[in-house]
Amino acid sequence: MIRTAIIGASGYTGLELLKLLARHPHAQISALVSRQTERTPISTVHPSLTGVIDLPLENLTPVQIAERAECVFSCLPHAASAEMCAQLLPLGVKVIDLSADYRLRDADVYQQWYAHKHPDPTRLKTAVYGLPELYREQIRGATLVANPGCYPTSAALALAPLLKAGMIAPEPIVIDSKSGVSGAGRDPKPHLHYPEANENFSAYGVGSHRHMPEIDQTLSDFSPQPVAVVFTPHLVPMTRGILSTCYAEPTRDVSTDELNATLRKFYEHEPFVHVTDQLPTVRDVAYTNRCHLAARRVRGHVLVVSVIDNLIKGAAGAAVQNFNLLYGWPETTALSP
Amino acid sequence: MIRTAIIGASGYTGLELLKLLARHPHAQISALVSRQTERTPISTVHPSLTGVIDLPLENLTPVQIAERAECVFSCLPHAASAEMCAQLLPLGVKVIDLSADYRLRDADVYQQWYAHKHPDPTRLKTAVYGLPELYREQIRGATLVANPGCYPTSAALALAPLLKAGMIAPEPIVIDSKSGVSGAGRDPKPHLHYPEANENFSAYGVGSHRHMPEIDQTLSDFSPQPVAVVFTPHLVPMTRGILSTCYAEPTRDVSTDELNATLRKFYEHEPFVHVTDQLPTVRDVAYTNRCHLAARRVRGHVLVVSVIDNLIKGAAGAAVQNFNLLYGWPETTALSP
Amino acid sequence: MIRTAIIGASGYTGLELLKLLARHPHAQISALVSRQTERTPISTVHPSLTGVIDLPLENLTPVQIAERAECVFSCLPHAASAEMCAQLLPLGVKVIDLSADYRLRDADVYQQWYAHKHPDPTRLKTAVYGLPELYREQIRGATLVANPGCYPTSAALALAPLLKAGMIAPEPIVIDSKSGVSGAGRDPKPHLHYPEANENFSAYGVGSHRHMPEIDQTLSDFSPQPVAVVFTPHLVPMTRGILSTCYAEPTRDVSTDELNATLRKFYEHEPFVHVTDQLPTVRDVAYTNRCHLAARRVRGHVLVVSVIDNLIKGAAGAAVQNFNLLYGWPETTALSP
Amino acid sequence: MIRTAIIGASGYTGLELLKLLARHPHAQISALVSRQTERTPISTVHPSLTGVIDLPLENLTPVQIAERAECVFSCLPHAASAEMCAQLLPLGVKVIDLSADYRLRDADVYQQWYAHKHPDPTRLKTAVYGLPELYREQIRGATLVANPGCYPTSAALALAPLLKAGMIAPEPIVIDSKSGVSGAGRDPKPHLHYPEANENFSAYGVGSHRHMPEIDQTLSDFSPQPVAVVFTPHLVPMTRGILSTCYAEPTRDVSTDELNATLRKFYEHEPFVHVTDQLPTVRDVAYTNRCHLAARRVRGHVLVVSVIDNLIKGAAGAAVQNFNLLYGWPETTALSP
Repeated sequence: MIRTAIIGASGYTGLELLKLLARHPHAQISALVSRQTERTPISTVHPSLTGVIDLPLENLTPVQIAERAECVFSCLPHAASAEMCAQLLPLGVKVIDLSADYRLRDADVYQQWYAHKHPDPTRLKTAVYGLPELYREQIRGATLVANPGCYPTSAALALAPLLKAGMIAPEPIVIDSKSGVSGAGRDPKPHLHYPEANENFSAYGVGSHRHMPEIDQTLSDFSPQPVAVVFTPHLVPMTRGILSTCYAEPTRDVSTDELNATLRKFYEHEPFVHVTDQLPTVRDVAYTNRCHLAARRVRGHVLVVSVIDNLIKGAAGAAVQNFNLLYGWPETTALSP
Repeated sequence: MIRTAIIGASGYTGLELLKLLARHPHAQISALVSRQTERTPISTVHPSLTGVIDLPLENLTPVQIAERAECVFSCLPHAASAEMCAQLLPLGVKVIDLSADYRLRDADVYQQWYAHKHPDPTRLKTAVYGLPELYREQIRGATLVANPGCYPTSAALALAPLLKAGMIAPEPIVIDSKSGVSGAGRDPKPHLHYPEANENFSAYGVGSHRHMPEIDQTLSDFSPQPVAVVFTPHLVPMTRGILSTCYAEPTRDVSTDELNATLRKFYEHEPFVHVTDQLPTVRDVAYTNRCHLAARRVRGHVLVVSVIDNLIKGAAGAAVQNFNLLYGWPETTALSP
Repeated sequence: MIRTAIIGASGYTGLELLKLLARHPHAQISALVSRQTERTPISTVHPSLTGVIDLPLENLTPVQIAERAECVFSCLPHAASAEMCAQLLPLGVKVIDLSADYRLRDADVYQQWYAHKHPDPTRLKTAVYGLPELYREQIRGATLVANPGCYPTSAALALAPLLKAGMIAPEPIVIDSKSGVSGAGRDPKPHLHYPEANENFSAYGVGSHRHMPEIDQTLSDFSPQPVAVVFTPHLVPMTRGILSTCYAEPTRDVSTDELNATLRKFYEHEPFVHVTDQLPTVRDVAYTNRCHLAARRVRGHVLVVSVIDNLIKGAAGAAVQNFNLLYGWPETTALSP
Repeated sequence: MIRTAIIGASGYTGLELLKLLARHPHAQISALVSRQTERTPISTVHPSLTGVIDLPLENLTPVQIAERAECVFSCLPHAASAEMCAQLLPLGVKVIDLSADYRLRDADVYQQWYAHKHPDPTRLKTAVYGLPELYREQIRGATLVANPGCYPTSAALALAPLLKAGMIAPEPIVIDSKSGVSGAGRDPKPHLHYPEANENFSAYGVGSHRHMPEIDQTLSDFSPQPVAVVFTPHLVPMTRGILSTCYAEPTRDVSTDELNATLRKFYEHEPFVHVTDQLPTVRDVAYTNRCHLAARRVRGHVLVVSVIDNLIKGAAGAAVQNFNLLYGWPETTALSP
């Protein structure tokens, strides 16, 4: 049994992580950390954990956390997370960071998009980007895993194999993504007030969303030339799920069948990525760690549809998948069905 | 043309009122008042008024308001509204108050339920409760109309005729009401955050909701004995509408047909209240000023289902209906279809 | 490992059952039976089972089913289910029937409410009503378990302990229930078409819903006198969950605290029933096998709020809980968290 | 007063049309035609018209319709609509056809996309495409108006001005559109069953949607070269509204400001099209005849977001706007606010 701590357990990602770890046969939840509360039972914050997890939220120091846990999941906001991780890692724990802090390898790019200096720039080189289907070997030996963003997961799984196969051009790539509202977190905001978000649909962060450079970085790893995507996120009146519709230009005359065959081949041994005959829908993967994909040739262009659950495959599920990789358990442990 | 001002125009009730007044042939909107903003265009606060109303929100004094308008609609919160009305009324304007301040005739009952002393208790005697179908004659001559609460409207229209006819006993009466989330107003709150309210259903204010004494008061007006209802509001994952399921005990052996015939007779000349053969649904009356009703005898008990749009018949539409009554225009002006 | 078959696996209850059984350590899914399809992969019918269950739906005879499975879950519609069970049981299998066919003990009551003669009346005496918290001992030794209805589960768990304690009178009892749309099954119907059910709320089956006599029967088991409730179901614009607001008259002057203490005592060893301090909401129990309860005294009357997931505790989860009881495994197996 | 008939009044478009015509000062609704029903009161089919329109649905012949009405709105399905129009027009009535039958000018293109021979090909030359902001002058003198599709309206209003100004290239153009479910009509279908469409999001008709050639045709009218767009519609879990995110390549180095200035100039006298500073959302235009637009330059590419209410500006509202044009009334009659 590996003793684990969750920092920032009061949000939506923390909740999903707790549900997954509660049924993990090799994980023991030893500490729930929150900077804002003092020994509040977790079931007060998350009534859906009533009778499931009987621990309080505690305001613990890094040293106290490291005494209780070998592996720490950080669900803190960016900046705060790196500050915490910078104190935890020297104490010998492994960290799976669900914030954005260690995803971008370049501290300047981070500063440009996140509008503050990176709190822990030296670790950007050793942190591993935790998208198992694309970076599995690096993850196995990591101490610090940067859990990927939800939109980047949906986009990278759709496009990386086609870029790697040289089937699509690195430019132009349009990624038109649609997310359920839980992706915006648990803090009430005017535009996320129920009567505002319900029966509504909107684009946001056009040209300025922080997941854009993260997508660029991953796709560039699989492309002969740097990739700079046009990424547009949208808010869908539903709680969970992301669907990304990705548009690219083929490098040669490829058919729908060739596109899907390339994706199928790339993911043939993956338990969580499936290429489906029918166009996938968010409901097909909701509450699971799976990603479903389908490609189409449309009027000479290439289109790939990708769906994930933003809180599972896009956050907590990926974190548990990385946890399984770090400790050598089957990757599907606690994640299936 | 009657010059009107709307105070507290930035909320949901204010928005609906503006839409209705914008198409009213005898109303001119001369001032939009907000205590919080300084000359913000109303279309910034309500983008759905773009190209419809081109006025700014202004922070005006009572004197300035009275110079601009003959009739004032107050959408302020309770307490604040009575304080404003107490200053406006001596200046010679008519006021339709959409807050709860002048609904209860007894200042002690008000203090008990609203937890503060009434700011303007002497006017409680002259204010008229603005439910036209039940108090039409008093409204015509009023200077201060207390626009009814949304739940009380749905409940009173369902039960008053049966109490008046002596068909149901004043005790016990259970009113199980279900409302869309817009009834809770426009301020973001944790339990109204989209991912919390969506795919959820909850009871709230059990035994303590402020609409309970308001329902008591109206039903008691139509009953030989005082009425004290059990009223339970619930939050429905939708934006608009209220359905109230009302349970009462018959005073004699009445049939479904007799119940509905009594309701039909009571409302036979009413343009906005309809007794339907099928059970009514919220969608039947959404975005209208109508109330649909249907009664049933169930195992010897009496059940009445009532539906309204909480923001129209339960607020802004009733206010315009009262406005029409105050000035002698057809009651349906600007309210149909 | 117990070999299991699911008949009628293409509906919503079947889907939830499959997800639960797929993670059950002692269950093997050996056959998926459907009368309408011929060897369709289950993932075509339920894309959310892609990569989880790799079996086809098959049109099997009772004999074929009994060869493949020791325990059969029937998710067939009523009447069809009893016809199938009547053939399966003599072949030596155990049956958990999720239809309504064996819930009512009296074939005449069945005929009156279901409008056809019972297809297998002699087994009504040996079938056990599978609500573990109320009938656990009988279930352990059963061969045929009648899995309870969703509304009856929510109502019986709320009221049975208070009736048994003599705290509430058997008459009048009002059960005002609100259910997500999945409770109506997977067949498209005009009033369940998305644009009709969305942003809508309605009562239905007033005085005529088939769960009414089922609630009567269970509550009568815990009452000195027969109980005849007023039960009103409503349709909520959400997919899953039931909230029942139950109103009863106290037999003496009981407080909120006494009511909740009685419920807590009754359920103190139950893993799935929790009495909460805050009013429970549907979201607290969605996707779980739990029931949350809270009682309140309101103006001298008694009110109990009860929430369950209609497809889990109200159907598939209860079936697995019964399965665990039949075979002596811990009741929470595959059901937690 | 112009006497009007509505054919196919039982669907969602028919309902919206009836609500708009009921408040039109120059329109008299003289006949509601349905092929399927025999003198059903319209309020049975649309309970929301209770007390608003008191006419029956009637199964009338073309001759009977022409006797009752000078102007006919056809909401029939494609093919059926052209067959009806071909009989009505020789009888001297004007027709506003809300089906797709007269939108495409080329009968071969129609046959290719609608998979049947056009029933009335000779009138394709005289029919006028009824998008007032782009074809106003032709509409004024028309006898047969082809009311545009909902998606094409949202896309054409966004892109036509930029194409006409030579600011964007005719190729590649990606139109990623998202629609509420009412766009799919009132007939229940499995994927539109509430529990399937709710909490879901999906792409459909990828590369094959019939609105694609319609968009091509309109944009080609404003471009020096033929346009062939990549159009992908998606289903949003909401009832009403369309948001289209349109991607194009600039012909030169244009800024966000230049793009919006071009759109503003093009629509400066239009009552229903507004270019907004903030990104528009579906809620801003729901239940109105307006289109809100905003353009952005993103990494050298051009993006335009467009929102409409699919049933109003995308169907019934546009039909009334065309009706106003045909008879010379102010275009906003019955359409504002």
